[in-house]
Amino acid sequence: MVLLQMPVAFAALPHSLGLSLPVAMLLVFGSAKLLAEIFERLHQPSIVGEILAGVVIGPSVLGWIGPSENMSFLAELGVTFLLFRVGLEVRVGELKQVGWTGALVGVLGVVVPFVTGWGLLRLWNKPQMESLFAGAALTATSVGITAHVLASKGLLNRTASKIILTAAVVDDVLALLVLGVVSSMADRTVNVLELTLTTAFAIGFILLVAGWGSRAARKLIPHLRQRLRIGESQFAMAMILLFGLAALSERAGVAPIIGAFLAGMAMGEALPHHVHDLTQGVTELLVPFFLAGIGLRFSLQAFSSRSTVTLAVLVLLAAILAKVVGCGLGALRYGRPVALRVAFGMIPRGEFCMVVAQVGMGLKVIPADTYAIVVFMAVGATLLTPPLLKLAFRGVASDQGERNAPLIE
Amino acid sequence: MVLLQMPVAFAALPHSLGLSLPVAMLLVFGSAKLLAEIFERLHQPSIVGEILAGVVIGPSVLGWIGPSENMSFLAELGVTFLLFRVGLEVRVGELKQVGWTGALVGVLGVVVPFVTGWGLLRLWNKPQMESLFAGAALTATSVGITAHVLASKGLLNRTASKIILTAAVVDDVLALLVLGVVSSMADRTVNVLELTLTTAFAIGFILLVAGWGSRAARKLIPHLRQRLRIGESQFAMAMILLFGLAALSERAGVAPIIGAFLAGMAMGEALPHHVHDLTQGVTELLVPFFLAGIGLRFSLQAFSSRSTVTLAVLVLLAAILAKVVGCGLGALRYGRPVALRVAFGMIPRGEFCMVVAQVGMGLKVIPADTYAIVVFMAVGATLLTPPLLKLAFRGVASDQGERNAPLIE
Repeated sequence: MVLLQMPVAFAALPHSLGLSLPVAMLLVFGSAKLLAEIFERLHQPSIVGEILAGVVIGPSVLGWIGPSENMSFLAELGVTFLLFRVGLEVRVGELKQVGWTGALVGVLGVVVPFVTGWGLLRLWNKPQMESLFAGAALTATSVGITAHVLASKGLLNRTASKIILTAAVVDDVLALLVLGVVSSMADRTVNVLELTLTTAFAIGFILLVAGWGSRAARKLIPHLRQRLRIGESQFAMAMILLFGLAALSERAGVAPIIGAFLAGMAMGEALPHHVHDLTQGVTELLVPFFLAGIGLRFSLQAFSSRSTVTLAVLVLLAAILAKVVGCGLGALRYGRPVALRVAFGMIPRGEFCMVVAQVGMGLKVIPADTYAIVVFMAVGATLLTPPLLKLAFRGVASDQGERNAPLIE
Repeated sequence: MVLLQMPVAFAALPHSLGLSLPVAMLLVFGSAKLLAEIFERLHQPSIVGEILAGVVIGPSVLGWIGPSENMSFLAELGVTFLLFRVGLEVRVGELKQVGWTGALVGVLGVVVPFVTGWGLLRLWNKPQMESLFAGAALTATSVGITAHVLASKGLLNRTASKIILTAAVVDDVLALLVLGVVSSMADRTVNVLELTLTTAFAIGFILLVAGWGSRAARKLIPHLRQRLRIGESQFAMAMILLFGLAALSERAGVAPIIGAFLAGMAMGEALPHHVHDLTQGVTELLVPFFLAGIGLRFSLQAFSSRSTVTLAVLVLLAAILAKVVGCGLGALRYGRPVALRVAFGMIPRGEFCMVVAQVGMGLKVIPADTYAIVVFMAVGATLLTPPLLKLAFRGVASDQGERNAPLIE
């Protein structure tokens, strides 16, 4: 399979426009926080403001900064820490309670968008392979956005949130499988054995870490803590386990952020409050780069023809509706309100869609305008999620007491 | 002047060797902490272990990772946060007490190494311009290393530490001036007025921020705190002021880390403990990248001839002795023990030396072997500083109570 190296896709991005480090940091962080503040005052989700900040300073509007390699690196590091922090607040046992529902949501949330995306492009008279790639691009949920919203509202312990997190892990494995199948179809090298083994390996890795990670961390961390002599040794251990599991998960065919989430979940109980605080500092600094980074990729220039614009809007609607229907059905046994929360929480799309489109471009089955449509769909779906989630969670009380309320204020 | 854009020099570095984010993070952070632990157990300074980790995993030994753009970016961000954190612990009033001595140490610590470096290369029959550039490359102290040692031992409030920090600011301005003069001599465009104005502007900027920054921050931060609605608004403000001052200082012709130090000093009293903790998290994560990053640049391959090796050792000795004599003399009125601590603290060299050498290469007056000698000198001087500081500060008690002991454990 060609696909299991998501970060490599970033290497193709252009360099920053010669901005020095402090200027680039100030521009992205400052504009994200400025728009977050404005959105807060307009009673809109601040996260939307942070994403739009990227659109405003990026190539589409002001052109002050492009999606450079350094900024993408910070963005990736930011979403890694975000998922790690979310994992720290979640217990494996709690996810197990909703395990089968989460799995069903994950499966339907991949199958329905894939079929919908493929069908829509076939109806639009696009070639078979291009339609299959477009379908694949609609599959993967970018759980970072939803996790950030839920964490910032102190809603991580609600049933819907647990289903979303479980489904996101399943979704990730399946979406990678779909991309594997589709891209090996495109270069006519379908190897069923290899695809099956890769998927089995990914599932095995996740089950292993989720099942044993917490127990191992509870033994390992206090043991090492007594023996290590360097300062802040627990923070150092946490970072090594975080990057180690992220690297391993990549090897196992799972996105590194899933590894980061599993690492957080494994270490949540073993790490003291002080280490939670230190990782929160990193998260607070870097998450704006992840959010604004989404906006930075957005490009209006590609939409020259009316036909492209129409198709882009249709694809965006299909991407949203397909997830809502698929994931909503999957969670229906928990009642309509929960199903709706889960459905909305699974809408966001992110890098994965763009990676699919880039693989498709590399195999010469996705043209440039379809790539632009995929990016438009990902940014659009992501921007619409926070207000929808706000609506669906209206009146739901945030988690109380326990692990002192909002993780990210 | 050609010179006031230090970070741009990094753009010339090669890319990482196709390592994904988690692998690169794990490799650098993990090896730095592993060697730090080993050095702690051998009763050696852990900071030396972290620098050597870069040498071991870098091009000189294992070749697992090169000084890529992303790693340099993290390193630069790391030293920015390190100086910011140090600034948070230092009061302007305390530096004023040792102001004149600090200035004298700064001046002698630039003049003596410049003359020594130039003289040595002239004696070695090197051309005039090459010798002048080599002299310029010996001038700038890299205060990050010393600041890290002093902070980690809880020694920031000792007299010697205050003199070192003050001298480092003066040193930075003068070293940039020397580079300006030397490089405009090389391309025959000496403009005395421009050089004078740039220097005056830099000094004015520093005096302005040091003099008024603290007062302004004490008014601004509580005021904004009440009005802002975003989460962790004080952390966001601190970051914006940090990057803003670093960017401004760059504009004013001062290194961004000096701006970060001034920003920390201005905000130290205005920020609550919680924000100090959050920034410590970032510092803990990124400082190993700064330290290992020094080692990553080291290259043994360049030393093919015995003559180059001999000159490299002589330049290293000259670099150390010149700083010790110059800075020691400057601080002599505080007695020999303090003078020795100051002298040793001013030894480390860093990026600046390599920037000087790169400017010289760009102007075709510095050949590749002299560049390698400069890098060897910088890494060597930096590696020798922590043990020398340990020796000089032997028996000195760390700061007590006040702002709860070691800043970086």
